[in-house]
Parts: sequence; structure tokens; C-alpha cells
Amino acid sequence: MSTIKIGLFGFGVVGEGIYQVLEQKASLGAEIKKVVIKQKDKARNAPSHLFSLNANDILEDDEIDLVVELIDDSAAAYDIAEKALKSGKSVVSANKKMIAEKHKELIALSRENGVSFLYEAAVCGSIPIIRNLEEYFDNDLLHSVKGIVNGSTNYILSRMLKEGESFDVALKSAKESGFAESDPYLDVEGVDAAYKLGIIALHAFGKRVELKDIIRKGITSLHPFDFQYAKEKRSSIKLIAKSVGNDNNELQALSVLPSFVPISEPLAQTNNEFNGVIVKSSLADEQFFYGKGAGRFPTSSAVLSDISAFKYDYRYEYKKGIEDFIPQNNTTASFYISFNGDKDVNKDLFERIEESFTGRERSYLLGEIKLSKLLASEVLQDPEISVIQLQKD
Amino acid sequence: MSTIKIGLFGFGVVGEGIYQVLEQKASLGAEIKKVVIKQKDKARNAPSHLFSLNANDILEDDEIDLVVELIDDSAAAYDIAEKALKSGKSVVSANKKMIAEKHKELIALSRENGVSFLYEAAVCGSIPIIRNLEEYFDNDLLHSVKGIVNGSTNYILSRMLKEGESFDVALKSAKESGFAESDPYLDVEGVDAAYKLGIIALHAFGKRVELKDIIRKGITSLHPFDFQYAKEKRSSIKLIAKSVGNDNNELQALSVLPSFVPISEPLAQTNNEFNGVIVKSSLADEQFFYGKGAGRFPTSSAVLSDISAFKYDYRYEYKKGIEDFIPQNNTTASFYISFNGDKDVNKDLFERIEESFTGRERSYLLGEIKLSKLLASEVLQDPEISVIQLQKD
Repeated sequence: MSTIKIGLFGFGVVGEGIYQVLEQKASLGAEIKKVVIKQKDKARNAPSHLFSLNANDILEDDEIDLVVELIDDSAAAYDIAEKALKSGKSVVSANKKMIAEKHKELIALSRENGVSFLYEAAVCGSIPIIRNLEEYFDNDLLHSVKGIVNGSTNYILSRMLKEGESFDVALKSAKESGFAESDPYLDVEGVDAAYKLGIIALHAFGKRVELKDIIRKGITSLHPFDFQYAKEKRSSIKLIAKSVGNDNNELQALSVLPSFVPISEPLAQTNNEFNGVIVKSSLADEQFFYGKGAGRFPTSSAVLSDISAFKYDYRYEYKKGIEDFIPQNNTTASFYISFNGDKDVNKDLFERIEESFTGRERSYLLGEIKLSKLLASEVLQDPEISVIQLQKD
Repeated sequence: MSTIKIGLFGFGVVGEGIYQVLEQKASLGAEIKKVVIKQKDKARNAPSHLFSLNANDILEDDEIDLVVELIDDSAAAYDIAEKALKSGKSVVSANKKMIAEKHKELIALSRENGVSFLYEAAVCGSIPIIRNLEEYFDNDLLHSVKGIVNGSTNYILSRMLKEGESFDVALKSAKESGFAESDPYLDVEGVDAAYKLGIIALHAFGKRVELKDIIRKGITSLHPFDFQYAKEKRSSIKLIAKSVGNDNNELQALSVLPSFVPISEPLAQTNNEFNGVIVKSSLADEQFFYGKGAGRFPTSSAVLSDISAFKYDYRYEYKKGIEDFIPQNNTTASFYISFNGDKDVNKDLFERIEESFTGRERSYLLGEIKLSKLLASEVLQDPEISVIQLQKD
């Protein structure tokens, strides 16, 4: 097999890692021909002739078969991916925002031009979840896919539970340890997890999901009282991204919500920056995938697997289809909602209240809520209200 | 896609489970046309016209595309698989002994006849390890694959560690709970794990392995003293099947041995009947797969995934090659060897002894041993000597 030539956009830790591995392992049969960067004057661990500021040095080079795109800016990333696919080059990307927002266009472009568009690194780093959903789990048997898909929030929640830290203190420690961005909004509000969940739902259930259809609340409103409650119930609190099917294994509901997870379960033992995903099938069997969700090595390893797959002309087949998702949130689920003692939370949100506790510091209600009502409810936006799902599926 | 017709050999819990799912889910596009069994007069939850005692009712039926073979007897299973492949039918099997011993012949037959031969259910039940090694993990990046691949022994070891039970008591409890066979020899001596390791090595490193090249010792010789020692070191004892590559990612050594695993590691938290596998790549990243390794649902779920894959004409490609493995056991590793106080263990086995303890009840030596020496040593056979590997890779 001849050596493939790669054009790389971005040379951060992941780009550099990939460059080094491909240099050391000639047997992989792939080499970086050109790297397009934004600033040329930085010191870099690679020969200077490799670098260029001009995207066309990659996009217009007919020798380059594959574009690997590792830049943060999702609009610029889309611009690159679009041009690359149109010029008949395959694309490997790790940009989940771009993929979540533009997969319709990108999949169409890759099909029209008969090239591969792969993005395992965009979801859960080193965990091969997209490939397994594509190749191994038939949707007719699939019941749900749920997991911890954001390392930053998981690190913060682990500290809040173990050390009893407040959200602000835990966030500070996450930033200091390099596990949270300087602007953590997308992570802590669950937006990053929602992007990933949308990509998972596409490959798990064949449905294209819009962000507005995902019941979402981040971790910023969680209160120390909630963690105390979790401990008493021998549970952990995790930010769980979840897609659940109905009895016909059609996608029914999507959520990114803090959730109580009994400490004996694998997801409760998925701590710090780790990610974990559980795939449940109609045969009542659970498969658990666990690994690092982000960072230099996990992301590089996923990108390299995509590069290898491209060499064998691998393409996602979307066998389960690509249809627009229509929410069927008429089912109910159990939730715990906590708030400051003097706050007035509308009890009509609940179909049935099973527990009601009033305390000086914090009060809570626990019971069944219709998902369609929750999706429209202001409790998801209110920074003074915690909404925590009770795990069932 | 037209409905595929399946001929099923064996109608135990797995066979029945698969029959029921395919009946309920017409969308899977597969139906059982005939089931060949040994005794016709048993009561079964399926229409009687489905059953036959004559293998040719499947093997000579041109309408049947796929043979699913779920019988225990590996010689009879091979006979069926051989005939099916020769008559142009694809085969899905869960018989690890047959596959481990006959994969050379079976792969050749499937290639000659242009049909699929799939066996995900043979290794770690619901964990899709074979498919992931085939499709996702490039061997040029692969460093090691190791794991707990036998549920019976893991159940027994979990009880020995937690409850302080002796091997005999724990085995009895495993039998009572249905987690050990009435004749547990293949499980407790690590033979079953060695079969699975051979299949893993083929898909991970492209090497065909013979049982004699696997450094193997089961769990029957383990002594309560060993578990006490493990606890003091904050470790668990697990039966680990391990294939490790050298610096060029070529298969170097294979072992099935009791091993100390620090309790913080995922494999130490893989308890009872569960299986867990860690795939480590050159990028120093670890991916952990966890699920049920045997039993009705996990096995059925793996068989159904293979049936689905067959529908898309999926075949293992053995991209990494199929070459005979030549052991390179000239490397050393660290081992703990314990024995009754009055027993004489040859210290020459060790390249270097790091700890030596003599006690009235039990004594131990700990140090570096050359793998080639260990493979040839009688300590592997001696029922009064414990050999436990110290985990490194």
C-alpha cells in the first residue's frame, strides 16, 4: 500500500503528537506533507518547510489525499472541511461543534464527492464509540446510549462529591489542572455534551438532532445540599448525556442532565477527567466503554485510528438512516428538584410528587415529570434551581 | 434487504433467546428456518416443525444462508462448520475451543468459499473485542491487550478476596450460583482463557498461537496467604490473559496467570462474573471494555451482532496477517512465587530476587524471571506453588 499524504490544519499538542507518531512509524504508511498554521513565528518541533500560512497549500495540492483538521474555530473548520471535500479530499476532524451543527452539509458533501469524512476524536476521545455504534450495535436491538462524555464537568463533579468543594472552588481547581478551559461555558452548561450526544444519536438511532430538542441543564446550579443528599442515597452525581429509544427502538428522548448514579455502577466509578459510555440493547445486556475523553494522547489515538481507517477506504455508512428527529417527550421520568428554602417552585410541573422536603437551607421535590413539560420549563434556565435525574434506563 | 434464513445448531438458553428475538423483531430481517438438536422429545418454546435431528436438514438446504452453531462439543461443532463453509454457507460460532484449535482450517475454508466466518460471542460475550481489534486498533500502534476473559474464575477470585474463602469453598459457591461448570477444569486451570487469548492475539497482532506457547497457570494453587499479601499491597488477584508486543509492536509474549492488580485500576474493579479488557496503544492511551462475558443475554447479543454483520456481508479481514507465532520470551518480568514453608523452590529460576520471606505457614520469593525459563518451569504445574505476576504493562 502506498504512503498517503496528509495536510494538517493546526499544530497544537494533538497535531504535534500525530506528526511525531507518523514520523516514527513508517509502517503506518502515512506522512504529513504540509501543516497550515495561524502564526508562523512560533518555535515548533518540526522542520520549518512543513509549515505554511496559506490554506491553499493544502487544499490545492493534488498529492494530498487526506485533510486532518484540528482547529478550534468551528466556522473556520467548516470552511476548510467544505473546500477539502469539494476538491475530492477525505477529511478527519475532531471539531464536535462543527460536526453537530453541520453534519447534514458535511455528509452530503462527502457522499457527493465519494470521499471519507471521519470524526471519532470528536466524541469521547479514545473511546471508539462512533465506530462501535456504526459497525457493531444494530439499532433494532439498541435500547439506550448514555454516558459521561465531558471530562471537564466530570472532574469538577468528582471534586464536589469527594472534597465537598463548591462549584466555584472545583472549577478553579479544574482550570489549574488543565481540565477546564479559561471560558468554561460550553462545558459547564452541558453544551459540549449536547453536541456529542447529537452525534451519538445520529450513529445510534439514525436521527439528526437539534440542540433545542435536547433537555439540557449543566452543573452550575448544583448545591452542596444535593451532594449531601446523593451521599445519603449512596449515589454520585454525574452529568449524563442520554439517548433513549422507545419499545420499537426508535429514538424517543435526549437529555444532558445531572443525574444520581448508585455508587456501585460503572458510571459512578468513572471519575475525574475520564469518560464512560454504556450501550444497552434489547437483550438487556450492557456494554461499558471507558477511557480518556480528551487531551493529547486520547485525541491523537482516535485521529490516528481514523487515518488508518481511511487507508482502508473506510466510510461511515449511516446504515440506520439520517432522518430529522421529532421529539416524543410524552413519557415521564423521575426527577429531584432542589431550591433555596424561600423560593417558590411550581408544583404543577410534576405529574406526581413522591417526596417533598422543606428545610431552612434548601428544599426539594421529587417525583414524575413529563419530559415535554420539562423541556419547556424555566427550571432548566434558573441558576438557583438544581434539576437532577434519577437513573432508570 | 431480503430476509435471511438461518439454520441453528443447538437450542439451549442462547439458541432459544436468539429465536425469540428474531421472531419479535421482523425488522432484523433474519429468521430461523430449522433447528438441529440432539434429543427431539424435550419440551421447547418453539413450534415443533422447526426441529430436526438431522444435520443435513440444514446443511443441504440451499435456502439457508447462514449456520449459527451453538453446541458444546468442539469436534462436532467443527464437523458442522466445515460442512457448512464447504457448501457455501456462512457460519457464526461461539465455540472458542473449536476456533482456537482450528482457525487455520476454518479461515482457509471461509476464504476459499467466499463466505463469512464470525465468532464475536466466543471471546468475552457481549464485549465487542474482536470487532474492535479487527476494525479499530491498528497493530502498528498496539502495545498490549490484557484482561479478565473468564467469568467463572473471576467469580471465584472475587469471593476468595472479599469473603476470605478457600478455593474449594468459592468454587462450590460458583457452581451453586451457576457461574461454574460441573467440570470446571478448563476454567480454573486457565485453558478457556488461553483459548480466548489465542483468538485475541490473532486479531490484535496477526499471529497464530499454539496453547503450548502461552505461559499458563490457573487459580487452583492460590493460597489464602496470597490474598492476605494482595490486600496488604492494596491489590486484588485476577486471572489476567495478556498479549504484549515488543517495541516494534510485534507480538512478544503471551500469558494466562494470576496477577496482582492495584485496587484503583479498572481490572481490579471488574468483579464477579464480569469480564474486562484493556487495549493499550503506542500513544500510551488505554481503552477499557467492560461487560458480561458469558451467559444467555451477553452471548445472544454477540451472536445477534454477528448475524447483523453477516447481513451487510461483513468478513474479518485479518489485515494484520496470519503468521505462526514464534515466542520471544527472552524478556523478563516480575513474579511472586509462594509455597509451603518447608518446600524447596529452585531459586535459580530467578534472574534477581528482590524479596524473600520465610514463614511457618507460607513463604515467598519475589523477583525477575526470564519468560522463557518460566514457560519451561515445573512451578507452573506444581499444585502447591502459587505463581502471581506483578502487573506492569
